[in-house]
Amino acid sequence: MHVAALFLNQHKIMTKIRAAIVGYGNIGKYALEAIEASEDMECVGVVRRNGEANKPAELANYPVVKNITELKDVQVAILATPTRKVEEYAKQCLALGINTVDSFDIHTQIVDLRRSLDAVAKANNAVSVISAGWDPGSDSIVRSLMESLAPKGVSYTNFGPGRSMGHSVAVRAIEGVKDALSMTIPVGTGIHRRMVYVELEEGADFKTVEAAIKADPYFVNDETHVQQVPCVDALNDVGHGVNLVRKGVSGKTHNQLFEFDMKINNPALTAQVLVNVARASFKQQPGAYTMIEIPVIDMLCGDKEELIRHLV
Amino acid sequence: MHVAALFLNQHKIMTKIRAAIVGYGNIGKYALEAIEASEDMECVGVVRRNGEANKPAELANYPVVKNITELKDVQVAILATPTRKVEEYAKQCLALGINTVDSFDIHTQIVDLRRSLDAVAKANNAVSVISAGWDPGSDSIVRSLMESLAPKGVSYTNFGPGRSMGHSVAVRAIEGVKDALSMTIPVGTGIHRRMVYVELEEGADFKTVEAAIKADPYFVNDETHVQQVPCVDALNDVGHGVNLVRKGVSGKTHNQLFEFDMKINNPALTAQVLVNVARASFKQQPGAYTMIEIPVIDMLCGDKEELIRHLV
Repeated sequence: MHVAALFLNQHKIMTKIRAAIVGYGNIGKYALEAIEASEDMECVGVVRRNGEANKPAELANYPVVKNITELKDVQVAILATPTRKVEEYAKQCLALGINTVDSFDIHTQIVDLRRSLDAVAKANNAVSVISAGWDPGSDSIVRSLMESLAPKGVSYTNFGPGRSMGHSVAVRAIEGVKDALSMTIPVGTGIHRRMVYVELEEGADFKTVEAAIKADPYFVNDETHVQQVPCVDALNDVGHGVNLVRKGVSGKTHNQLFEFDMKINNPALTAQVLVNVARASFKQQPGAYTMIEIPVIDMLCGDKEELIRHLV
Repeated sequence: MHVAALFLNQHKIMTKIRAAIVGYGNIGKYALEAIEASEDMECVGVVRRNGEANKPAELANYPVVKNITELKDVQVAILATPTRKVEEYAKQCLALGINTVDSFDIHTQIVDLRRSLDAVAKANNAVSVISAGWDPGSDSIVRSLMESLAPKGVSYTNFGPGRSMGHSVAVRAIEGVKDALSMTIPVGTGIHRRMVYVELEEGADFKTVEAAIKADPYFVNDETHVQQVPCVDALNDVGHGVNLVRKGVSGKTHNQLFEFDMKINNPALTAQVLVNVARASFKQQPGAYTMIEIPVIDMLCGDKEELIRHLV
């Protein structure tokens, strides 16, 4: 792996990073676009359950396989799988000496995943960058930076407006619900309103469904509004947002104010971050890392001194 | 140096980082406060031109010397000197095997300083972190992160409202000016208005001074307003601000919007950043670094896994 890293530190990029995409849902599709838009990386193939069967048009020029071992000289695997499959796929790739990147997003299990993949990565002289999306991910860098700038103080992460996958799934599990969308609306200081849109099965009673949603553990502590709509798909929009704030103390000086905002296409940003950390993985020592453990310059394409001149 | 680094990675901090402050102006004073507020660092003394003569009250318990060689077991020197003195002092410290941190702020000379100090640092098994303030510094991390999130696009750094030292000095050099303050006012897209407050020498003509300011290279390209005031010192306020924006493309998806804002006490934040990179210096390999080359987690005090649990 470290031979590639050496090339990247030269003035000219000598060779492209050979990346595979594992999983081809929403994030996988955007990951392909992000790779195609990166001058220092190429997609050597896609791993998906169905292999070449029903191959989408945009994959015409790429091999699509059922197992990563069928692809040639993969240097890094971009795991665009469901979060609960990340550990299994990462271990398979790392054991082959292939770097991995993922956007594992169960905040409470990140430290455990890092420990588990760190051992496998080190044993196979490979690098794994975990939880690399926008939250966890780029937001984690901003949160850490803000905390360093004002070590005492309070931070709030406000999400939205945007879809919450977890909340939407919880609503879909309720009896009488055909389809559902839960929007997260930030109301400040880390508090969120839930706007829930439901498409009902025939004969289902709206009032009963509404009461079940409001009593669900996912919603019971939040201000929740439920609306019936004829077609949930008509509301589909992958835009999302974040507002991160910190008010705190630098040294002994109070009232230092910091704020970070973004309004973004959610899967497009996640995919771009995955491509960035795929690049950065070749500049780290063997082991597993979260994004706050990686210098930001390593995520960028280009000559180091030129980047410093341009960005510092 | 790396023995200290090992201790810091344990669950308990075994020993405090021994820091010296070189230069005791505005930044030096705030650096002392930031060290005193840090549980993992202690101030072993201050280096200033006058030594113990006219020692300020807050330095009562600290040795104040004329040369850093008079202090015992210094591990890192926080260079709170004028920018043009940074290279000289850094080389002196690095040659003694002492890590250095500075907030060198001449953007066009950062790459040269990094090269020059990198050689001396490596030769003496020490680490130097350069240009570590808020701009260059923490803003550089945000700019780099935003560029990684949307590799194609346009960024703007908008400064203020706050004093511009360089512009104020330029006005003070104009004939008839007794004292002056130039405030930088952001008007968006990286364009700034200059609000200049002047205290005139007796007999000086305001219209003449105003014309000279507006014709000065520092002001000729900006919207500039000049006002006469009886006492410039009455306007003194070290608050400052930044608004960093980027609009760009993640992968092939356009209109991704990012914004970072802060309203801060300028020297207090600079000093906090210097203390943060002093801590981080013990976790880097010998050499010279800008802040974008250092993982943000290294700037924070505490156990690595606890920080990941809390911040990622």
